[in-house]
Amino acid sequence: MAELTAIDEELLAQIADLHGMPRGAFNIRKDGQLVERSSSANIDIEAFTDKQGIKITVAPGTKGETVHIPVIMTKAGITDVVYNDFHIGDGADVVIVAGCGIHNSGDEATEHDGIHSFWLGKGSRVRYVEKHYGEGEGTGERILNPTTNVYMDEDSFCEMEMTQLKGVSSTERETNCELAAGAKLILTEKLLTHGKQTAISNMDIRLKGEGSNVQVISRSVAQDDSYQVFNPLVVGEAACHGHVQCDAIIMGNAKVKAIPGIEAASEDAQLIHEAAIGKIAGDQIVKLMTLGMSEEEAEQEILNDFLS
Amino acid sequence: MAELTAIDEELLAQIADLHGMPRGAFNIRKDGQLVERSSSANIDIEAFTDKQGIKITVAPGTKGETVHIPVIMTKAGITDVVYNDFHIGDGADVVIVAGCGIHNSGDEATEHDGIHSFWLGKGSRVRYVEKHYGEGEGTGERILNPTTNVYMDEDSFCEMEMTQLKGVSSTERETNCELAAGAKLILTEKLLTHGKQTAISNMDIRLKGEGSNVQVISRSVAQDDSYQVFNPLVVGEAACHGHVQCDAIIMGNAKVKAIPGIEAASEDAQLIHEAAIGKIAGDQIVKLMTLGMSEEEAEQEILNDFLS
Repeated sequence: MAELTAIDEELLAQIADLHGMPRGAFNIRKDGQLVERSSSANIDIEAFTDKQGIKITVAPGTKGETVHIPVIMTKAGITDVVYNDFHIGDGADVVIVAGCGIHNSGDEATEHDGIHSFWLGKGSRVRYVEKHYGEGEGTGERILNPTTNVYMDEDSFCEMEMTQLKGVSSTERETNCELAAGAKLILTEKLLTHGKQTAISNMDIRLKGEGSNVQVISRSVAQDDSYQVFNPLVVGEAACHGHVQCDAIIMGNAKVKAIPGIEAASEDAQLIHEAAIGKIAGDQIVKLMTLGMSEEEAEQEILNDFLS
Repeated sequence: MAELTAIDEELLAQIADLHGMPRGAFNIRKDGQLVERSSSANIDIEAFTDKQGIKITVAPGTKGETVHIPVIMTKAGITDVVYNDFHIGDGADVVIVAGCGIHNSGDEATEHDGIHSFWLGKGSRVRYVEKHYGEGEGTGERILNPTTNVYMDEDSFCEMEMTQLKGVSSTERETNCELAAGAKLILTEKLLTHGKQTAISNMDIRLKGEGSNVQVISRSVAQDDSYQVFNPLVVGEAACHGHVQCDAIIMGNAKVKAIPGIEAASEDAQLIHEAAIGKIAGDQIVKLMTLGMSEEEAEQEILNDFLS
């Protein structure tokens, strides 16, 4: 097994709030290889034999446990494609902490493509937290292209918080969700882009069951010359509720495009979306400056608030 | 010149509130041919020689005049493609009433494709009213595919009310607008579909000049097995304001898809969109029923309100 360097430790702290090895079930991956893996009594993690990745099985009724599966990349010129499948037993209630940190000090690109699929059993609850982060003095790109698939059985509940902190040269995000009767999904995506970075986020959410409910919250800040595209689609196929909300702050020469689609294929579907793109309100900055902040500090304070 | 029948008169009343020939400048077209045309001192209408259609020139400073250019179609099996170009002089202030009514009693389709282009001079004001309507006991489709192009010079103002009343088998609407500095556009589109009708509405609105402003209001009712798609895009390329609002009522087995896009290509662009799809709120119906209406009457009253 690989050793963790100071850079590794710092990446793990950024993306998973980890200081040292976590407790319980976890899988730490570095540069396409396993660092360490641990299963618990209720949560089994095993490697696929036919492809890169792991199968995480949470026993029915498991309560209050956390799974950590962070990935760190520190070498230039590699692409790591990994499949992580989560099978959550009926009635389980767990927290899953994922994320990927890239430190690229070379001239070639470093890329991580995580394909995460979740099968939530009846009445189960999952809180999923994923952070993406890039750093390093190299000119090589830091690329993160995550795919997230969520299949929710009846009355399950899922809360997903997906955040791109900073330093990610380009990202193309695909999120696909299907909700059975009574399932509820809260999906929050927060993206910060700067420099010449690009971010594309596509979502396809199908409300298939009676009483299913989704809330999509997208918050983003596009700075400098960066470019972002949001393309979430919510389809209501039954008596259901869907709410999509996109808010973007634009700064410098950045461009942001939001195209949230809603599609009602049932008379009893109730779908709403809202989107707003604009710069930070001048009066907000002035207000903070009267409290003694510089303009830059005030701006940073507002951005932190917006993305937190 | 063709004569107007009782059916013609009824179509003209539906789409242009006309009873007999209008006053002032007008052009009435029936089944691909001229019925009657009249210019006024300030508004010149002349036919193109190289294609079907007319060029309408409004002299600078013209105030308080109205132009009527209705089209009626009463024959099955014909497709009428017509170009109407409007050149509005600086400082003019006019009302333009267009519209198309189809009475199809045959088994073949009747189609009208009106390509309307507007060049609004500096500081000019236009109110444009367009109604689409179909009827007839035949099985032939009634098809209306309008293209509307609006080029707004500095400080011009344009209010467009485009309504599809009923009876239109299929429509594919294209609306393209460009706004220079200080220009303001209010674009209202109201669509009713029923039976197996389909309606697609694409809009592309470019806010190019400082202080330009657009408000898009889309209201629609989809009944029975009909299908509607809204696809408006607003791009802010300067310090500008854009607001897109889509509200749809869905009934029966109808389907509605709304994909309003906003794209900010300037830090000073402020863009907002909102969309909601749902059925008529039950409590609204109950409220009207307590006033003595039947459920059907209450529903109709709410729909009339929504689309008026």
